[in-house]
Amino acid sequence: MKIGMIGSGFVGRTLGARFRDLGHDVTIGSRDAAKPEAVQWADATGGRATDFAGAAEDGELLVNATPGTVSLDVLTEIGAERLDGKILWDLSNPLDFSRGFPPFLSVANQDSLAEQLQRAFPAVRIVKAFNTVTVTVMVAPEKVGGGEHDVFLAGNDDGAKAQVRALIEAMGWRAERVRDLGGLDGARALEMYMPLWLRLMGTLGTAQFNVRIVGTE
Amino acid sequence: MKIGMIGSGFVGRTLGARFRDLGHDVTIGSRDAAKPEAVQWADATGGRATDFAGAAEDGELLVNATPGTVSLDVLTEIGAERLDGKILWDLSNPLDFSRGFPPFLSVANQDSLAEQLQRAFPAVRIVKAFNTVTVTVMVAPEKVGGGEHDVFLAGNDDGAKAQVRALIEAMGWRAERVRDLGGLDGARALEMYMPLWLRLMGTLGTAQFNVRIVGTE
Repeated sequence: MKIGMIGSGFVGRTLGARFRDLGHDVTIGSRDAAKPEAVQWADATGGRATDFAGAAEDGELLVNATPGTVSLDVLTEIGAERLDGKILWDLSNPLDFSRGFPPFLSVANQDSLAEQLQRAFPAVRIVKAFNTVTVTVMVAPEKVGGGEHDVFLAGNDDGAKAQVRALIEAMGWRAERVRDLGGLDGARALEMYMPLWLRLMGTLGTAQFNVRIVGTE
Repeated sequence: MKIGMIGSGFVGRTLGARFRDLGHDVTIGSRDAAKPEAVQWADATGGRATDFAGAAEDGELLVNATPGTVSLDVLTEIGAERLDGKILWDLSNPLDFSRGFPPFLSVANQDSLAEQLQRAFPAVRIVKAFNTVTVTVMVAPEKVGGGEHDVFLAGNDDGAKAQVRALIEAMGWRAERVRDLGGLDGARALEMYMPLWLRLMGTLGTAQFNVRIVGTE
């Protein structure tokens, strides 16, 4: 599949490299196409490095790996004509660090970043997933809890969710641990989990953790 | 220990009954001291049923088991003179159902219900804990996930947290699974987890679940 990574920070590069490992055709987009880390990434992985708009043009499936507080601006700059009809896998979090750490959410409770993006780009097929784990856990779930832990999907387009799910499972996540929470308003729940995730990171002293849902069975 | 349950709904009665099982002296408080369910609870458990103020007077440790959206009003009615210096174990959630289901949080992000209560009653030793699981899991952790799952403490008073922790562990929670998140501002994280908990309840079709933190060990 042709995958366009919107954002070439640590998350975009790590996830993009994993997609390359899995045989996908990956373009990574930065604000500046000549960003050294992105060019080096392309050299190392055999992917392509370009600007945001170029990555959006290249990809059939796009991954929003920009910081949540700038995602809307970046997508607006890319433009609906390059985005419409495509799947946008949103793994960002709307974390505002302007008042220090811990950050607060720039949107929460009765709205979410994913829904803001969806309203701005109604023809984009947005799926929220993977914002609840650090990127090194995303790409190698077997490294924590024996691989028995959970991630979540939310989105209004079942076909888009199925494609994101397939990519997640290809990275080693067990099908029954990829839990579909329903429509994109489920992104509220996933983004509002972030404060607990951050607090746990502080308590545990590591980001290499996740949650396993346990029940009565 | 003398425990005063503020609230005699299903949560207050179930948790209060468990405290009775563990040998504590429990008073359960309702708006109306003659509330039939509370009187029946007292007959069945050997505890005492009275009004909110009476339960607050009886208890050395108080449990806020009122709906979060009325907690401040109930505590204000009880009055600081009956509350000051006592431990208040807050297990409520600020869920506003006025716009239907799912509810939204009446406070979130840069504040929490527990902190609102603490500001209103600065001499009360508030501990947030147990708002993240349904009451039947609170009182019998062994019934889900083999007892290997997590709850969280947040509060500014270490002595109060130690007493709440002791009660939690006495109910069967393993010490290493009762995770201290630090100060009472951690209640933001615990309350903002509620939307995910509610969404999971819908997906799983049951409230009998919890999360286990898993890492690299």
